[in-house]
Parts: sequence; C-alpha cells; structure tokens
Amino acid sequence: MTPQSEDFSAWYNELVFKAELVDRGPAKGTMVIRPYGYRIWELLQADLDRRIKETGHQNAYFPLLIPQSYLQREAEHVEGFAPELAVVTHAGGKQLEEPLIIRPTSETVIGEFMAKWLSSHRDLPMLLNQWANVVRWELRPRMFLRTTEFLWQEGHTAHTDEADAMRETMLALDTLYARTAREVAAMPVIEGEKTAGERFAGAVRTFAIEAMMRDGRALQAGTSHYMGTNFARAFNIQYTGEDGRLSYAHTTSWGMSTRMIGGVIMTHGDDKGLVLPPRLAPYQVVIVPIGRGGQAAEVIAAAAALAQRLADTGIRAHVDDRPQLSPGFKFNDWELRGVPIRLELGPRDLAAGSAVMALRLGDAKESISLDGAPARLADELEAFQDFLLQRATAFRDSHTVTTDEWGGFAKAVATGWARALHCGTPECEEEIKAVTAATARCIPLDGEPESGPCVRCGRPSAYGKRVIFGRAY
Amino acid sequence: MTPQSEDFSAWYNELVFKAELVDRGPAKGTMVIRPYGYRIWELLQADLDRRIKETGHQNAYFPLLIPQSYLQREAEHVEGFAPELAVVTHAGGKQLEEPLIIRPTSETVIGEFMAKWLSSHRDLPMLLNQWANVVRWELRPRMFLRTTEFLWQEGHTAHTDEADAMRETMLALDTLYARTAREVAAMPVIEGEKTAGERFAGAVRTFAIEAMMRDGRALQAGTSHYMGTNFARAFNIQYTGEDGRLSYAHTTSWGMSTRMIGGVIMTHGDDKGLVLPPRLAPYQVVIVPIGRGGQAAEVIAAAAALAQRLADTGIRAHVDDRPQLSPGFKFNDWELRGVPIRLELGPRDLAAGSAVMALRLGDAKESISLDGAPARLADELEAFQDFLLQRATAFRDSHTVTTDEWGGFAKAVATGWARALHCGTPECEEEIKAVTAATARCIPLDGEPESGPCVRCGRPSAYGKRVIFGRAY
Repeated sequence: MTPQSEDFSAWYNELVFKAELVDRGPAKGTMVIRPYGYRIWELLQADLDRRIKETGHQNAYFPLLIPQSYLQREAEHVEGFAPELAVVTHAGGKQLEEPLIIRPTSETVIGEFMAKWLSSHRDLPMLLNQWANVVRWELRPRMFLRTTEFLWQEGHTAHTDEADAMRETMLALDTLYARTAREVAAMPVIEGEKTAGERFAGAVRTFAIEAMMRDGRALQAGTSHYMGTNFARAFNIQYTGEDGRLSYAHTTSWGMSTRMIGGVIMTHGDDKGLVLPPRLAPYQVVIVPIGRGGQAAEVIAAAAALAQRLADTGIRAHVDDRPQLSPGFKFNDWELRGVPIRLELGPRDLAAGSAVMALRLGDAKESISLDGAPARLADELEAFQDFLLQRATAFRDSHTVTTDEWGGFAKAVATGWARALHCGTPECEEEIKAVTAATARCIPLDGEPESGPCVRCGRPSAYGKRVIFGRAY
Repeated sequence: MTPQSEDFSAWYNELVFKAELVDRGPAKGTMVIRPYGYRIWELLQADLDRRIKETGHQNAYFPLLIPQSYLQREAEHVEGFAPELAVVTHAGGKQLEEPLIIRPTSETVIGEFMAKWLSSHRDLPMLLNQWANVVRWELRPRMFLRTTEFLWQEGHTAHTDEADAMRETMLALDTLYARTAREVAAMPVIEGEKTAGERFAGAVRTFAIEAMMRDGRALQAGTSHYMGTNFARAFNIQYTGEDGRLSYAHTTSWGMSTRMIGGVIMTHGDDKGLVLPPRLAPYQVVIVPIGRGGQAAEVIAAAAALAQRLADTGIRAHVDDRPQLSPGFKFNDWELRGVPIRLELGPRDLAAGSAVMALRLGDAKESISLDGAPARLADELEAFQDFLLQRATAFRDSHTVTTDEWGGFAKAVATGWARALHCGTPECEEEIKAVTAATARCIPLDGEPESGPCVRCGRPSAYGKRVIFGRAY
C-alpha cells in the first residue's frame, strides 16, 4: 500500500478497497458498501439514532421521488442543487407528465407535509428525522466522501420562532453531531458557523462540525441549518398562535452521512491500514488460534469459548479459524482492517491459562490471563478509544497555527489549519482559495472575541473572532 | 369510520390515514410513512434484523441505480419487471448514455458483485442482506400493500449446490419470516410453495408465507426464492471447488417489506381502529391522567413517574398529558391507534395507590395496584400478544374449508380459503381465477399426502397434496 507520507489520496483509495469496506458501483460515482464497511455504519447509526430519539425526535419516511416543481419553489435551493440532480422521466412504460427528481435532500417534500400536518402552535415543535439514501450527481467521486448515492439521516424540524429553531439548530450540531463524532468516532471536531459562501442552498445560517484528517485537510462531518422562514414561505408551513393569528414556522434541517466513515479512516488510519475506534469496530477483539495438527481443534474450541465469554460482557469478538491461512497472514489482515486488539492463543498459552495481547497501535505484546480477559479487554478498549481521541486532538492542535501574517497563513494551510482574522467578503475568500486552495472552514463557536486587519487584504475583520481556514475534502 | 362488515377496503383506507400511519406521497402510488407507522416498522425491523444476523447473514448496501443492461441479462427477470420500472434518463444536467433503473429488487446488481467477490468454495456460502427502498410502478396502489416505493430487506445468498441453497431458502421462509410473523406480528401464517404461475421472475422455486386478513382474503407476507443457477449463469457467479473445477453457484433471494404493516392492520384491527400486537406497538401502555385544576399537576407527575417505572422494566409507556383534550377524546384516540393497554389515573386512584386498566379488546375495566403495575402489565401484554395470535388462528381455521366439490370451493373462497386438490395446470388456475377471483395461494409445506380429481376440471391432481386457494391482496 502507498504510504500516507508519499501520497495520502492514493493511500486512502487503496485502503478502502483492500480493507473490503467498499467496491465501485456500476453507475458513475456510486459505491457498494461491503459488510465490513456497512457494520461500521450500523454502529454509528445505532448510536446517533439513540441520541436523536432521546432528544425528542421521531423517525419517519418520506418518498424518494420528488416532483420537479417542488424543488423550484425555493429559488436558492433549486439553484444550488440543479447541477447534481438525477431525473426520472419514464416509469411504468410511459413518459411522465412531470419529471421526478431523486431526492438530493428532502426539505421540499418534507416541507409540503409539514404544511399539511401543522395547524396549531400546540403541534410545534415538530421534530422529524429520516434515515435514507440520497442522490447527488458527482463529477469527482471519492468513496464515502463524495459519492453519487450516499446514506444519511436528515433531521427536519419546525418551530414557532427563531429562538426555538436556533436552539434546535445548535442542539443538532452539538448534542447530536459533535458528541457522536467525539465519543463514538474519536474525532475531535470543531463546531462553528459557515461563512455566507459556504451556506446550504436556502439556509439563513449554516453550522458544521469540522474535523482534521491526517494530511492536515478539513472534513465537514455534519451540518445543521437554520432556514428562517424560507421554506415555510415556499411551502406554506403556517400555524395558528395562541392569539389566533397565522404565522410562518421557522424550520431547521441537519444531516450526517456515510461520509463519516471516510472521516474515521483518515483521522486514525496509518500505513498498516485502518485503525478503528472500538465503538465503531465491527470486531473489537480478534482471536487468532495458533496450533497445528492434533492441537488445532483444542485451541480453536478454547478460542470460541473465550469469544463467547467476551460476547457475554458486550465485547464484539471474532475467532479467525480460517484453516488455509497462516497466523502471520491473519495478523496483517486484521491490522489492515483496523481491529483494536488481537489475541494470539496457542497450546502453550492455553496450558498457562493465558493469551498474548497485541494492540493495533504500538509493537508491544503482553501475556494476559484468560480468567481476567473480559474485564482487562474492556479496560483496554476504553483506553484505546480515549487514546485515539487524544492523539487526534494533539495532531490537530499541532497542525493549527494562529497567525496574523500572510506568509504564516499560506504555510499553515499547506499542512493544516490557520486561525486568522478575515474581512468576511466573498471576494477575499475567493482570492485566498485561488492562491492557497484553502477555504473558510468555520467561525468556531468557542472563539475568543478578537478583531484586527484581515490576514489577506488588511481590511477590518468581520465576525468578531478568528476564522479557521484549511484545504477541505 | 366505515365498519369492516360494510366495506372492508374503505375501512382500511380510512384507518391508515386516521391513525396517522401514512399520508399519500406526491408521486403516483407513493406513501409517506408517518412517525406512528414508521415506529411499527422499526420494531419489526429490529426483530427481523436480529434473526438475520443470528443466522449468519451480513448486512451490506448496494446501489439504488442499476444499468438497464444488467436487468436484461436474465430474460425472465426483465420480462417480469419491465412494466414496473422507473427510469433515470438524465443526471448532472446531461442525458445518460445508458439509462439507469431504480432498483425494483437487487438480484442483478448483487449478482454482479457476488461474481466479483466469489473465488473459492471457501467463500461459500455467501450470506448477504440489505435494508433498502425499492421502486415498482403501481397502477393500483394501496397504502402499505402495493406502493410505488416501499421499504424492505432483501437477502441474497450464494451456495455450492442445490441442497445448501434449498436449506437457505427454507431457513429464510421458516426461521426468519414465519417466526417473525407469528411471534412478533401475531399473524398465523401458512408456509408453502407457489405454483408455477406465481413464481418470482427468474426463480426455479418460490415459497411464501400467506396470512388471512379479517375479510377472508390472503396476504402474501414474505417470499423466499431458490434461483437455481439462473442468475449465476447470467452474472457468471462461479467458484473453484476443492477439486479445482469451476462451477456455478446456486443462489437464493428473499424479502419482507412494509407490506407487513398492512397485514398487521388487517389481521387484528376492528371497527374501533387498529389493534396492535404488543411487540409492534409504539406505545404498549398509554396513561391518561384525569384531574382538573389544582389536582392536574399532581396526577400528571404521578403518571410520569409510573411511565418511568414501566420504561425501566422495558415497557413502552406514554403519558397523554395534552391539556386541551378531554379524557373521553383521548380514550377514543388511543383505541383508534390500537394501544394494547390504557391506564386511567385520577386523584382518587392515586390516593388509593391504584389505576384503572382497560384493554384494547373487551369492555372490562379493572383497578390495579400501582406498586405491582410493572409486573402485572408485563403479564397482560404477553397475554394480549398470545390472544391475538390465537384469535387470528381461530379466525383463519373457521374460514378455511377443505372441499372436493366446486360449489363448496366457490363458496369457501368468497369468504375465506379453500383447501382443494388441483390439476396443476396454469389454464385451470386461470379459469378458477376468472370465475371466482381466487388464486392458488400456496401448496402448504405441512399438507398431508393426498390425491384425487381436480376440484375444477376433474383431471388427476398434482403436487401430491391439497392447495390453498383464496382471493388475494
């Protein structure tokens, strides 16, 4: 496999196939998510879905096919998505009277039904979510990061006023996305607002979580939008207030997708392959039985018994008993697939009541007792999860430079992020992008109040705080 | 609401909207699954997914869009599905060189990748499943039962030989589908094989579970197909055996869909509304606090505390504290929505440490102690689940007639099912359908050996056992 230091993109593109996470789909830019990759998605999904439900949202399912006219009702929205649409023109053997769009996102169709279901202020807030596939035609597809079809959840909510809708927007950003990224994916994301040029088509304000990949680039890993009354006006989402007056609802939408899997790969992976955070690892512990001839059966039986004991305490364990492969091959295979802990179990270990433990990071091997294995491995997995978050945080911080001069800025965004003051004009953002390929990733929520001259053009800074710039995926 | 006895179809069509299970989607024949309906699907899905995983299958995800040429590779398959296809002709602002089909089912695209991934006999069996949406253009749509887009799981497996593939076909039918239907949906399904005319397009053998609805009609609630080597030949799904020879794999596919929700409604519902089996009920217990003025807050707090105690023991409980609605309105509302148990909690009950329990079926009310409520309600829910299965079984049996004469047959299929001997010719099946609207539902797996003259034409019977005939959804 190409080393990360030589060509990070090549490393990524080789790894996703070698680790059997994906395959290329037949239609341009589509992907097949193979079982090992899909299990990572299921684990992420289960955790995020729990958080979505705990915060009072209800899942529903809206149609895949949206009449073209729906998209046209919100002018900015259709303008933003028009180049990426897939269009059904024929169905049931006939040409359709009105073409149908495969949803690129569902604000329009959900807006239509919110309008139908909403009547009184008592129906608010209306807190909906759906798990779905969406299609956006991609000219430069990349597995997980930008694919023509991807899986995601999209939250869509309606509220009485701006304050309540903004609370929701921030809840999705922080309580749902930032926490899932940090606690489950071990990705130390920055929460911030997008500048005008990076806003969602149709939104009043867009917020995102931004993560740093091991090549210093930024990955937008989840977005949350406050729509104001833009969609409410386009779809007539109105309610009768306590005073009997009709008002437009304020809506939000927010999404997190299979792109997160790409983020996990590029946040933690190394030249040996994937490094999976235990909470997202399909197998947290793989047991490799070692023993030939007459001893093989006994060792495999002991490995299976150990795996069952681990499973009973909630650890996802797997015995690799493939007879035709050598232990060395298996070690490399599970390293490539990013399994946090490998246990080697041979006849001598078994006789001694122990197994040899090797962590995915570091070269040390240690003999651990079989009796205490469940408790010990649970501790190791928790420590491994914590370590990944700490390591990624340290990496991000050491690749983020606070700078007020252009030379330092350009140097910083070549290998990581720059925290700089910016004038806030789209032209200046464009110019920075043209020269350095870096874009304004976000205006961090937790930035200290600060102002001064723009790092590029010297005009007075906007936003009252520093902006994070970096090259992005 | 129209009574079942007056017009069963009208009853169904009114109920699915009134109970807020669905709404009509904008594109012809599509549906919106609303939160209350979607929760039923999630509960069914969680149970079936667990069974699918426990039997060694792995989830994956294959693309929505399938090149037209893939479908054409299996002649019967494309012939069967051609009239129902939705076709994407334009994407990314351009006309596509080859049109893309929105998957009506995924044998073709999954076959393509099985061929790519399969090499040795050691790779078999290959046991895949996906949860996905599919699109089949419907001319006579009906919510849940026949919609242009629906949600389902589709299992796709490859095996070394017919025996192993047939074991899988029967495992899906029995261990996955029949048990889910009986144990979760309380639907007493019959497992059987389809006659040639009812086979899946491209299958060698098709099996199904058939359920009887309360109007006596049959609902096919899940199907499992043995494909022989038809798709293996079309997609070149081959493996090298232990002897080094190349052979075609034998494949299967099987699916269960959101149609099951329609089955649940029509198996258990009555003139008051839905009757949900506890295992699929979004709320198993609804608590209606009763109390005005100063007492309201105290009663609502007690109801919330009780709901929490029930939730702690795994019971899905909900407090209906909508202030603007009367208790009577709420009782009717939750009856309509099929909640198995309602608890009424007023100031006097509270003072006595009790609540009034009313089951969704029967008129009796009973005072139960709050202390013992979790254990008591768990027992009641289990009994309710069992009762629904028993009631549906009794209904089915009393509406199934074993008959050898045409008069009795025609009478039986007007209100239920007929168990009859049949010659097995498609012409005779067609004639029976033309005269009575009944079709051969299945040849039950557990039928006793029997033969004699065909109930319609008098020719010698086929199959060696009786066939179930009925009018179907």
